Amino acid sequence: MPIGYLVVDHGSRRPRSNAQLEDMTERVRRLRPDCPVSHAHMEVVGPDIAAGIAELVGRGVDEIVVLLYFLADGRHVQEDVPRLVAEALAAHPGVTARLGAALGPDDGLAQLMLERAGEAPEPA
Amino acid sequence: MPIGYLVVDHGSRRPRSNAQLEDMTERVRRLRPDCPVSHAHMEVVGPDIAAGIAELVGRGVDEIVVLLYFLADGRHVQEDVPRLVAEALAAHPGVTARLGAALGPDDGLAQLMLERAGEAPEPA
Repeated sequence: MPIGYLVVDHGSRRPRSNAQLEDMTERVRRLRPDCPVSHAHMEVVGPDIAAGIAELVGRGVDEIVVLLYFLADGRHVQEDVPRLVAEALAAHPGVTARLGAALGPDDGLAQLMLERAGEAPEPA
Repeated sequence: MPIGYLVVDHGSRRPRSNAQLEDMTERVRRLRPDCPVSHAHMEVVGPDIAAGIAELVGRGVDEIVVLLYFLADGRHVQEDVPRLVAEALAAHPGVTARLGAALGPDDGLAQLMLERAGEAPEPA
């Protein structure tokens, strides 16, 4: 069985923000068309991490890669999401998960911030 | 006078998170070695946006490009940061500023999340 991806963000009371996670999930799906890809919010709104993992397991996945849509390498990434993933896995014996890292800090993000401000790509 | 860059994030009570903005600011500095580059936090902790703008103006900058270290295109990016920038500019006649956009959603971020999880670059 192929691995499955779970794209996780913080979660927001604003539908517009949560829709952006679905947008990002669709972008991951296009990069990994052969694998199940789902999404979950850490808190505030569903689907929560347990629901996201259950959905992937229901599609036959037994190895989950958690992709973190967080900029900061902070408490959520270091503690909260790993704990919620571990708790959710307790309901699915034999299923494993591993977690990615926060997006930042990163040179690519620095370049992307410049591009988002209409600044030209890095001069040669 | 060259333009100056102000890298702005939300701001956190956690020094580790704020240090990551300084790290990102240094990465922008390496990409734009000929331009003044400073950083500011939207709230919670200093330097605030007014202080960041004052620092750039003090270095002779009269055109500021605000780079947004925010994932979500939400209220902070759409309303709060623009308002704080406009308020700060009132103290500096003749100085202009323009703002970038949020980092996400973006295909490059999808690829970066995969890489952060040890997943190989997109298959050819």
